Amino acid sequence: MNKIKVGIVGATGYTGIELLRLITAHPYAELEVITSRQQTGIAVADIFHNLRGVCDLRFSPPESEQLLGCDVVFFATPHGVCMTEARKLLTKGIKVIDLSADFRLKNPIVFTQWYNMVHRAPDLLEQAVYGLPEFHREAIGSAHLIACPGCYPTAVQLGFKPLLESKAIHPLNLIADVKSGVSGAGREGKIANLMAETGESFKAYAVSGHRHQPEIEQGLSEISGEAVSCTFVAHLVPMIRGIEATLYARLKTPEIDIQALYENAYQDEPFIDVMPSGSAPETRSVRGSNTLRIALYRVPDPNVAVISVVEDNLVKGASGQAVQCMNLMFDFPESTGLTQTALLP
Amino acid sequence: MNKIKVGIVGATGYTGIELLRLITAHPYAELEVITSRQQTGIAVADIFHNLRGVCDLRFSPPESEQLLGCDVVFFATPHGVCMTEARKLLTKGIKVIDLSADFRLKNPIVFTQWYNMVHRAPDLLEQAVYGLPEFHREAIGSAHLIACPGCYPTAVQLGFKPLLESKAIHPLNLIADVKSGVSGAGREGKIANLMAETGESFKAYAVSGHRHQPEIEQGLSEISGEAVSCTFVAHLVPMIRGIEATLYARLKTPEIDIQALYENAYQDEPFIDVMPSGSAPETRSVRGSNTLRIALYRVPDPNVAVISVVEDNLVKGASGQAVQCMNLMFDFPESTGLTQTALLP
Amino acid sequence: MNKIKVGIVGATGYTGIELLRLITAHPYAELEVITSRQQTGIAVADIFHNLRGVCDLRFSPPESEQLLGCDVVFFATPHGVCMTEARKLLTKGIKVIDLSADFRLKNPIVFTQWYNMVHRAPDLLEQAVYGLPEFHREAIGSAHLIACPGCYPTAVQLGFKPLLESKAIHPLNLIADVKSGVSGAGREGKIANLMAETGESFKAYAVSGHRHQPEIEQGLSEISGEAVSCTFVAHLVPMIRGIEATLYARLKTPEIDIQALYENAYQDEPFIDVMPSGSAPETRSVRGSNTLRIALYRVPDPNVAVISVVEDNLVKGASGQAVQCMNLMFDFPESTGLTQTALLP
Amino acid sequence: MNKIKVGIVGATGYTGIELLRLITAHPYAELEVITSRQQTGIAVADIFHNLRGVCDLRFSPPESEQLLGCDVVFFATPHGVCMTEARKLLTKGIKVIDLSADFRLKNPIVFTQWYNMVHRAPDLLEQAVYGLPEFHREAIGSAHLIACPGCYPTAVQLGFKPLLESKAIHPLNLIADVKSGVSGAGREGKIANLMAETGESFKAYAVSGHRHQPEIEQGLSEISGEAVSCTFVAHLVPMIRGIEATLYARLKTPEIDIQALYENAYQDEPFIDVMPSGSAPETRSVRGSNTLRIALYRVPDPNVAVISVVEDNLVKGASGQAVQCMNLMFDFPESTGLTQTALLP
Repeated sequence: MNKIKVGIVGATGYTGIELLRLITAHPYAELEVITSRQQTGIAVADIFHNLRGVCDLRFSPPESEQLLGCDVVFFATPHGVCMTEARKLLTKGIKVIDLSADFRLKNPIVFTQWYNMVHRAPDLLEQAVYGLPEFHREAIGSAHLIACPGCYPTAVQLGFKPLLESKAIHPLNLIADVKSGVSGAGREGKIANLMAETGESFKAYAVSGHRHQPEIEQGLSEISGEAVSCTFVAHLVPMIRGIEATLYARLKTPEIDIQALYENAYQDEPFIDVMPSGSAPETRSVRGSNTLRIALYRVPDPNVAVISVVEDNLVKGASGQAVQCMNLMFDFPESTGLTQTALLP
Repeated sequence: MNKIKVGIVGATGYTGIELLRLITAHPYAELEVITSRQQTGIAVADIFHNLRGVCDLRFSPPESEQLLGCDVVFFATPHGVCMTEARKLLTKGIKVIDLSADFRLKNPIVFTQWYNMVHRAPDLLEQAVYGLPEFHREAIGSAHLIACPGCYPTAVQLGFKPLLESKAIHPLNLIADVKSGVSGAGREGKIANLMAETGESFKAYAVSGHRHQPEIEQGLSEISGEAVSCTFVAHLVPMIRGIEATLYARLKTPEIDIQALYENAYQDEPFIDVMPSGSAPETRSVRGSNTLRIALYRVPDPNVAVISVVEDNLVKGASGQAVQCMNLMFDFPESTGLTQTALLP
Repeated sequence: MNKIKVGIVGATGYTGIELLRLITAHPYAELEVITSRQQTGIAVADIFHNLRGVCDLRFSPPESEQLLGCDVVFFATPHGVCMTEARKLLTKGIKVIDLSADFRLKNPIVFTQWYNMVHRAPDLLEQAVYGLPEFHREAIGSAHLIACPGCYPTAVQLGFKPLLESKAIHPLNLIADVKSGVSGAGREGKIANLMAETGESFKAYAVSGHRHQPEIEQGLSEISGEAVSCTFVAHLVPMIRGIEATLYARLKTPEIDIQALYENAYQDEPFIDVMPSGSAPETRSVRGSNTLRIALYRVPDPNVAVISVVEDNLVKGASGQAVQCMNLMFDFPESTGLTQTALLP
Repeated sequence: MNKIKVGIVGATGYTGIELLRLITAHPYAELEVITSRQQTGIAVADIFHNLRGVCDLRFSPPESEQLLGCDVVFFATPHGVCMTEARKLLTKGIKVIDLSADFRLKNPIVFTQWYNMVHRAPDLLEQAVYGLPEFHREAIGSAHLIACPGCYPTAVQLGFKPLLESKAIHPLNLIADVKSGVSGAGREGKIANLMAETGESFKAYAVSGHRHQPEIEQGLSEISGEAVSCTFVAHLVPMIRGIEATLYARLKTPEIDIQALYENAYQDEPFIDVMPSGSAPETRSVRGSNTLRIALYRVPDPNVAVISVVEDNLVKGASGQAVQCMNLMFDFPESTGLTQTALLP
């Protein structure tokens, strides 16, 4: 197979470096250019030592013409960048995969409410496909612009999907109690993210309103086909990688066999592992892997279903899912370059 | 004030060592004897180096007669021990404070269901007082036998109490999503608790039925005065100390000012800190301290109240609360020996 | 005893907050004023939640006149501040205890070499007393200006002291392999100190030249009475508090009983614990405590002595030692306010 | 290329699971059988969830005849097992790669001194080849029995090798101050290895005599061609994977360019990365990878060389190196199956 040419804009954060790890090991992708305004001229491997001997590129300036020679460009940038830069690439027939929030919310007014920024490319929102392969596989295959889901929304949507699609739960009082390792907070020099601040401690944060809230409700409503209300609380775990979501829903009929429902719904999915009844998914079981594991529980209250979902926030929650989308867009086998076994212990 | 004589049975676990730290610093308590079958003859400080120069005692055998010379004896033992040993002490007028589960559940049949053990002293259940000072302060003051609450039930009960007492929430669909550091799993040599197993990972556990479930529902129902149903899911956090409970309830009237409700309810409590609106309690803010911090949140769904509670599972969740009970039983000021500032960072 | 009035300049770092924890619990000290340019007007307890209910003060501006009403002022500031501010206080008879590096190095030229800054108060260097009570106890008692030792130099000097004083080792090829938790890197928003950068990893740093190098050699030479050369390598440990120093020296006479030497040398020291032969000091055994523990080892090579030293870098390595100096300066019993048992686990 | 058939004896520890991760991803190896007495009949993936979907095998009993159908058998067992079982396999022409200590020490008397066990196959010691490819590449290629080096000895030997081979240092006073993550302590249920015991703490251990001491001195002496004495102190780091070794040596001639020496010595080695001058190798930069990184330092004392070495103790320090040996034994390209990029962050 001919290799495609890949560019990455803004690869100095944690989703960027993870993308580098995956793309450099992908058999059908050739990394052409990586850009970073601040690090222009610096060798990528000088910042991320794990890439010594793996990636010889230096950071190019953001306006690098090399991007225009690529087949696909990933944006691992803060929100606001891709919406400005994507059009130029798209008009040249270059596919764009955006890991930021720019094209996740269909309604630009909602975007402005949550991100304090006017949307500068509202017309592109319509062609943007939400990059959740388990829900939009076909559309992703023919898309030119992909909005990769947020890390939390990936876990929450895939966790509730079979129950919502089968109309087995009351859609208006869902609860998603979600916990993330600190890499989810990004690679910026903030006091709040120092190890001496986050180590050996645990907390809820942004309880009254997290930016993933509207994305979650938009996604769940689309899956369900009716309005969904989900109370979503995020927590910070003193570890680096991993998300666990504990989901609570009220069943319409307590007799339902949710284990069978999920095993059936996800039997053909290459990256979703419905664990046997009684299992306790650990985030470490997916560390560095694109797999998302799910376990279903019944509790003393027969009306309640509890679902535990784990994923690596940087892989299935970000860069791995982005590569999964790329595989679909270029008609590569969906698992290409994504078969690494999770690193345990 | 004359010092009271204190004995500790089974001080080789984490609640035991924490009790040693607190009792050796208590101005009105004199540690007389510590027992341990396995460690008989060994100096306490040889096992717990932080006690070098602080505690000169050696472990005595469990049948030590010195226990009978004490004013109060703490049991920091696995369940099943205190129910066998307490009577002998009580009949001599010695007060007993049990940190195990033996006297927490009022119904011995329920105890047997959850602990796989016949209760050997069901007649003592009636005189046992549940050691939650914020709910049973007076009864504790005149009690001879205290059943110290479990670590999770402490956080969950104190987190829901004002809402339940004020009848502001629907009592039958409470949710408690609770997370604990690994010291809560005890000091036994189990593979599951090795650092290489629990570090850098997060998981839910015992979802289908945790032993604290019946204790939580018993306590919440007593607080509420009516039947309460609470779905309770425990999680393991890769840190040593600390519990965070995120509690979800449906409000009967969305207009209620829950911030004011809690500030009012707890204004005279020496160990409960209702934080200002918008706060995010961190477990580290109570590390080594008997304080329990609470924050109240309103979320997009106006019918939902979210409460975040943090405590040190070994202090307010166990040994600190036990000392708080001791203070009440001996008419010492309630905070005596419990005023250490939390260790942060 | 009358309480003394205490001021703290720059209490927003980790040594500052630790000083707050200790001073607020000190029976003979009254905290009068805390300054911070950036946080002026903010309540201390709003930044450090463990101080809620413990400290009601707000940060004052650095030029606060209240400092002039104090008996003693601590500087928990970056280097360069105390050398500018100390004189004004000293001339008013106010004692100054500096936790920064400003007055540690006796030679201002050496200071400039290592700190890239001209010393602005070289005349004060002479009256500054190096605040290592185990070596300068008497001088500290009558001092007006104290230069508190660095965290690493405290461990290294106290670790080598008995061997150097007894002339038992060759002084020109000492090795100090020292490891510190991340709180030693300070409370600044730097990428290098994020949990996602320092967690689950270990490294040597500043190998070719750490600022504590000249302080260590100055101190060891003063202790020894002759020139000492010590190769010093610092490492970063993925934990928050604690320093361990493994020290290597070549013995002049292999027959020496180093265990007896140390037990003898330190028998009257309230904060030095020479552990029994065969012990392995853990940093957690001194967490939150002013104790420094030492163990001595003989290895297969009979000419080599190995010493392991542990301390809490924020207590005996910084703020606890500063309070120990304060106690000596004001003729309080040396251990006043410093008797907290280490928090283990 | 035809796939070889691989068996693993005792795959329930951390080197065993790491071997499973590597072998299941190896293009020329087919995993035939895994044995474990305790886990016979259990699916491997039920114990190690990261292997769900990757490895379908169940544990066979140790006496499984399937081992005799293999081309190569790895022993990831406690010491004492391989020395008993290897002969039967070797006589059938099956190659044996032992990850335990059984064949590391050439002198069976020394083995007995350090491992408290009589050597039961001293005649096999002679044919056993020490599996350090960078020193014994050719011998490994034609060996039938490989003794894989210990994790610490790998780092120490490769760290000192160029200096010893070039006779640039005094061989009788080397120092190796080495630090390991907790996975090095194995997967047994011991209190000392609980997260509540090892987390947030650091210590030296086994200072007076670690079992890797004789292996290190044997290896360094063989490399050097003369007697070498090395003081070796091991430390436990609160992280899961990774070893860092800080090595100290006295140079015969201070003028030597050690950077050039190492770059030259290791230029053709696929798994050794000599970093540029001034670098600080982090253990995370090799997490999950077979690479070993080295940095060289000159310190204020011109006679001293300091070397920092990092490796993943479970990969280059154990299972990765074992696979590297297997590749050499079967004439596969040396890096086959070992090219995973380290997982950072």
